[in-house]
Amino acid sequence: MRTGHTHLFIPGPTNIPERVRQAMNVPMQDMRAPDFGALTKPLFAGLKKVLKTADGEVFLFPGSGTGAWEAAITNTLNPGDKVLMSRFGQFSGLWVEMAERLGLDVAVIDVAWGAGAPVATIAEHLEDDAHGAIKAVFVTHNETATGVTSDIAAVRAAMDACGHNAMLFVDGVSSVASIDFRMDEWGVDLIVAGSQKGLMLPAGLGVLGVSRKALEASKTATMRRAYFEFADQLKFNGDGYFPYTPPTQLLHGLSVSLKMLLEEEGLETVFARHARLAEGVRRGVRAGGLKICAHPGFESNTVTTIMTPEGVDAVKVIRTAYDRYAASFGSGLARLGGKAFRIGHLGDLNEGMCLTALSVAEMALRDNGAMVQPGSGVAAAAEFYRDALAATPARMAAA
Amino acid sequence: MRTGHTHLFIPGPTNIPERVRQAMNVPMQDMRAPDFGALTKPLFAGLKKVLKTADGEVFLFPGSGTGAWEAAITNTLNPGDKVLMSRFGQFSGLWVEMAERLGLDVAVIDVAWGAGAPVATIAEHLEDDAHGAIKAVFVTHNETATGVTSDIAAVRAAMDACGHNAMLFVDGVSSVASIDFRMDEWGVDLIVAGSQKGLMLPAGLGVLGVSRKALEASKTATMRRAYFEFADQLKFNGDGYFPYTPPTQLLHGLSVSLKMLLEEEGLETVFARHARLAEGVRRGVRAGGLKICAHPGFESNTVTTIMTPEGVDAVKVIRTAYDRYAASFGSGLARLGGKAFRIGHLGDLNEGMCLTALSVAEMALRDNGAMVQPGSGVAAAAEFYRDALAATPARMAAA
Amino acid sequence: MRTGHTHLFIPGPTNIPERVRQAMNVPMQDMRAPDFGALTKPLFAGLKKVLKTADGEVFLFPGSGTGAWEAAITNTLNPGDKVLMSRFGQFSGLWVEMAERLGLDVAVIDVAWGAGAPVATIAEHLEDDAHGAIKAVFVTHNETATGVTSDIAAVRAAMDACGHNAMLFVDGVSSVASIDFRMDEWGVDLIVAGSQKGLMLPAGLGVLGVSRKALEASKTATMRRAYFEFADQLKFNGDGYFPYTPPTQLLHGLSVSLKMLLEEEGLETVFARHARLAEGVRRGVRAGGLKICAHPGFESNTVTTIMTPEGVDAVKVIRTAYDRYAASFGSGLARLGGKAFRIGHLGDLNEGMCLTALSVAEMALRDNGAMVQPGSGVAAAAEFYRDALAATPARMAAA
Amino acid sequence: MRTGHTHLFIPGPTNIPERVRQAMNVPMQDMRAPDFGALTKPLFAGLKKVLKTADGEVFLFPGSGTGAWEAAITNTLNPGDKVLMSRFGQFSGLWVEMAERLGLDVAVIDVAWGAGAPVATIAEHLEDDAHGAIKAVFVTHNETATGVTSDIAAVRAAMDACGHNAMLFVDGVSSVASIDFRMDEWGVDLIVAGSQKGLMLPAGLGVLGVSRKALEASKTATMRRAYFEFADQLKFNGDGYFPYTPPTQLLHGLSVSLKMLLEEEGLETVFARHARLAEGVRRGVRAGGLKICAHPGFESNTVTTIMTPEGVDAVKVIRTAYDRYAASFGSGLARLGGKAFRIGHLGDLNEGMCLTALSVAEMALRDNGAMVQPGSGVAAAAEFYRDALAATPARMAAA
Repeated sequence: MRTGHTHLFIPGPTNIPERVRQAMNVPMQDMRAPDFGALTKPLFAGLKKVLKTADGEVFLFPGSGTGAWEAAITNTLNPGDKVLMSRFGQFSGLWVEMAERLGLDVAVIDVAWGAGAPVATIAEHLEDDAHGAIKAVFVTHNETATGVTSDIAAVRAAMDACGHNAMLFVDGVSSVASIDFRMDEWGVDLIVAGSQKGLMLPAGLGVLGVSRKALEASKTATMRRAYFEFADQLKFNGDGYFPYTPPTQLLHGLSVSLKMLLEEEGLETVFARHARLAEGVRRGVRAGGLKICAHPGFESNTVTTIMTPEGVDAVKVIRTAYDRYAASFGSGLARLGGKAFRIGHLGDLNEGMCLTALSVAEMALRDNGAMVQPGSGVAAAAEFYRDALAATPARMAAA
Repeated sequence: MRTGHTHLFIPGPTNIPERVRQAMNVPMQDMRAPDFGALTKPLFAGLKKVLKTADGEVFLFPGSGTGAWEAAITNTLNPGDKVLMSRFGQFSGLWVEMAERLGLDVAVIDVAWGAGAPVATIAEHLEDDAHGAIKAVFVTHNETATGVTSDIAAVRAAMDACGHNAMLFVDGVSSVASIDFRMDEWGVDLIVAGSQKGLMLPAGLGVLGVSRKALEASKTATMRRAYFEFADQLKFNGDGYFPYTPPTQLLHGLSVSLKMLLEEEGLETVFARHARLAEGVRRGVRAGGLKICAHPGFESNTVTTIMTPEGVDAVKVIRTAYDRYAASFGSGLARLGGKAFRIGHLGDLNEGMCLTALSVAEMALRDNGAMVQPGSGVAAAAEFYRDALAATPARMAAA
Repeated sequence: MRTGHTHLFIPGPTNIPERVRQAMNVPMQDMRAPDFGALTKPLFAGLKKVLKTADGEVFLFPGSGTGAWEAAITNTLNPGDKVLMSRFGQFSGLWVEMAERLGLDVAVIDVAWGAGAPVATIAEHLEDDAHGAIKAVFVTHNETATGVTSDIAAVRAAMDACGHNAMLFVDGVSSVASIDFRMDEWGVDLIVAGSQKGLMLPAGLGVLGVSRKALEASKTATMRRAYFEFADQLKFNGDGYFPYTPPTQLLHGLSVSLKMLLEEEGLETVFARHARLAEGVRRGVRAGGLKICAHPGFESNTVTTIMTPEGVDAVKVIRTAYDRYAASFGSGLARLGGKAFRIGHLGDLNEGMCLTALSVAEMALRDNGAMVQPGSGVAAAAEFYRDALAATPARMAAA
Repeated sequence: MRTGHTHLFIPGPTNIPERVRQAMNVPMQDMRAPDFGALTKPLFAGLKKVLKTADGEVFLFPGSGTGAWEAAITNTLNPGDKVLMSRFGQFSGLWVEMAERLGLDVAVIDVAWGAGAPVATIAEHLEDDAHGAIKAVFVTHNETATGVTSDIAAVRAAMDACGHNAMLFVDGVSSVASIDFRMDEWGVDLIVAGSQKGLMLPAGLGVLGVSRKALEASKTATMRRAYFEFADQLKFNGDGYFPYTPPTQLLHGLSVSLKMLLEEEGLETVFARHARLAEGVRRGVRAGGLKICAHPGFESNTVTTIMTPEGVDAVKVIRTAYDRYAASFGSGLARLGGKAFRIGHLGDLNEGMCLTALSVAEMALRDNGAMVQPGSGVAAAAEFYRDALAATPARMAAA
């Protein structure tokens, strides 16, 4: 028998705002009613603002972010196309695997886990590709397994430097709406996101931003596709409809989360908050004598992957946190299994919640033999938050 | 400014029970928590009961029924495989279109709209296919556009009669959990359903039942697939997990709707209720002097497609019902556009609601020039319901 | 096992809008937080508009309308005070009983059930009271038992005509926000309402409008009171607080229902809608050959009390409607027990719902032996609604 | 713009479980339906178990705990009756004030704030009252202002020791369902509780437990009452009905919270959890060098009143916590204004949440000049919780 909140510190699905939950509690409705577009059309417009694109199109697929990965590939590429991908964590690895399954010729650059997209190596590959065999460069903006954020602008700069014409595909599932992302400015052709992270919704909507260039490519791309066909969406989306039944309750939720992100808190403030919350968590982790997986300069503002000390089983730490303290942390994935756990700090979150995460992590670590000084993490994070918020305007507001 | 219920009489998404709505209003949770399987494993077991399969596997994909159509095809067939499909409405037609897009060699049998699967013609095709070129026979159990139910058992009998080895694919999106469906008994290899119809949930979950034979086929099928890969699901589902983030709120809703269908009302009672509600609607429609699209013997118990009289624009009828009487009817699709409207009578529904549908339909028809006797539809349906319910045990129960 | 909506046609609690339900689904909060007044202060302002008072004060008591009756009496009168009350139904009768229990000297005018406040007789009593012994005249604006609306303006005119100084107490529980009520214009000193009727909320908030004169009286009134003390509310309400914990979820709901009533639909449109819906119900009832309890000119726009034919037990009709057709009607109260049932048609309601009420009532009446022509009620009401709405602007709008 | 949970640490309304919120999200229903008692009758039975009474009656009044105080007094006493009350905090003081307003002759024993009911002094008064003038002894079981729990069993023992026949009235608003309370064993005649504390519901229901002796007294008690009349409730409650419209959504919530308290967690486990959570908070507070208001032996397990250091304005601490850290603490009341703040730790709560409270309190105290060692409170509490939970069975369970 649990009591109280189950503290949710996985890197998605994230905590969702009460108002989003309220908005999703709707009876079913006719998704072909004449006024349905009044709900849906602003969603496309709002998501363009979130992705910072004026020119691109936004698509919403009932499905997960994995589905949106597939939509990006199948709509714009041809079987056997060569693509360049970097692999530095579980999720960038899974994307490689999908690309191979779907019949692409994938050149993989393997990078140490903890580092991000290797811009110089990418540049070399592109320079060596004088005939433009590489049709697309894939980059995972935020690798959720290692807590690493890559520099998309630098990848674009490298592409531009050698005048390469490949498309730029970005996995922004755990960055979009939490970490700054600039589709147009960075020349991103396909950006993949999902509802259950920075957009503060349940899972169930795959979100895609697609550049004009990628849309053009979709007209001739020969990879087989049906469910994820852009053209079907294009035929209906203009009037606010969909080619098949959309998850209307998520659309109602999205309407509110976009209002919160864009009109109320404001995107830049959202990014600053994520940066602040993340920095507190990192300080707390380090104050406890623990290491984080991300290499310096690559630290993610949405998830921190924490290495457990020698001899401390991360699986047990996570289990103790869940069973004893009603808190969910992310597990170490693949080669990090048993060696790391993850604190997701994205979505609808505040300082008090991050301190809860640190408190519970300390208890669960100590319960499993880690020599962490009690209260050290909270002390370091709290002092950082105090200073940071003293410099921030009061946030009181009617709910 | 609307007031009161928006009366929902489209053939899906359907009205959903209050308890399902309650159950879906959950905070987010860790889909990899140790106790997650306690929620999810019974869902697979329950869906097997709904599909009446002991041997088959059930898969749940975040997506729509359209996605589940694709999953069925891509997991079990090879590019260029020959398949036999019947087309007698918008949805059976869309499935043909998808099969062609995905690279199948489709033999299409076109049938008059209003009729169902042409068993004799199917039998002929199979008999002519001595070398077993036809890998699968596709049948739409309930064609949502025309309100037509086909006889799946008869198709199976025809297949067996000539000893044909093709797989049997069935679209049960608008039949499963509302009209009797027997996966094992009828030898169905792939049955496709969705959350937003008889399962009384919002859209967002594609449901598949897959026979042992189809699972075997999936091991060698060469069609490209990734998101919809059965094998990925199989790897995780046994412990109640999923290869990517599932829509947890729908899973909570499904848990309750299965309980209602299987344990509380009981599947056979659910089918009887749909039959009774549908018969009342049909009597009401006919009492008003209107024709229904379905040919005798093919009438669906989940949706009735009603032909408007000469000179009465069905589009306007639907629009009047929505704008003036806050009621959503389904529109006539494709060749039925402007000539028919549809009353969905499936899901969480009762007699009073069906009478509302008939009342509003009469008003909207009369507003648009149809000479329907006021009150005639309600009178005929109500008398039928009275007699039927007088013979049924009282249904009063604490909520 | 019930399915579908339980059709609610009691005269309160009424059907409540989805948006009000959403708004009430809130976590608990600090009712002494600095921003709590941002929620609550507009509620007082909005309720003044609903009551049409500029000068009066509004009080909100956690409790039922019965509690608000008591608050009105105990704050403004003294033990033994003489008051003049009319009794023409169960609720006006209960108010008499309460006044007597609380120690008032009640002069009761008994009137036939079906009629309303007897203005001429009231005038006579007041004229005979040369010394002003009568401290207050009590009138039930809408008698929920008989479906009768009284003419408050006429009572005020009678009081003014003889220059009587008594306070005017009005029970508006089943009229306020559904039927026009004008506190200032009609010189009402105490108006009692509740959350669960025209305000479209659950029960739990008693609402009082209090004139300056009544507030003045409350300063010297010697009747014992504590929980319902106006002065305690006055001390806190100005800043949006309450002397004890208020039901915050109802306050959130009220915030939305006031927005709907005042800003979206508009009070006068709300009244017109109630008048239209009620007229349809009455026409339907009469078309079925049934009589209504209210005498001509007194018919209420929020509830219709329907007399069952000789030999038809109204209790059984109600029970059949509930058990068999999942519909709740109000019962005949006191002397109307077994002889009448009531259809409440107030709150969040539309034409289709009223037709459902008539359909179900016909079935339940026929099931119990009443010779009502099938479909007759729906036909009469539907034709009325069609004409009425054809003359009304379309109401389509995004939810 | 707030983000994340608003951390609620006031001593009521308390955090309420998600399942209770789900259960309260219901459409309105007929409170006179034949099956309504299936919902309500178990509530009375369950509340008797919570109050530990076999013989007593339970009443539920729409209203706050303040209303229930009034119901207790007006039903069982006569104007001018002498009663003995102890005053040692804001709430025991308000009860005195109410008793005086309602016309009782109150003998008040004033006690230092921080102490509880003065058993010896009470005993003296009773011994001096040879003629039994004292009709009732009032004790506040848990004084919410000071965080003090009194010994009701000892008061009963003192009453028995001198053979005094007075009734024993207990205010259990902030103790019932969180701290052990034994109505029958302790001979309590009237116990007053409210929905918004240990019962984990919103405000809006006053709960009363009434002994046989008190029920007997109510038959002759002459104090004026109407809304709060026990006899009216008795007339209806047996069949599960109420004399006026109850707040049905709260009844649905209560149904779930009783199930959680009685069947799932179990009352004694609930008490143990409150004791554990409270002890952690107290250790944390003391580790930070702060004093608590309660004298040794009187510490409450539901609320801790914390004295701020000299020169630190508690009002500012609370305001900082709210504005900057989105956390609500209770304020110091009356003579504690500015000198103390309160942490409520009752209801649906766990260890992680209590650590959040301590973290935020430390930040807000330090922001306002208090010299609290960063992390000290969390460290002390966390170590205590670790040890305590290591000795407790794992609490993991499917939601």
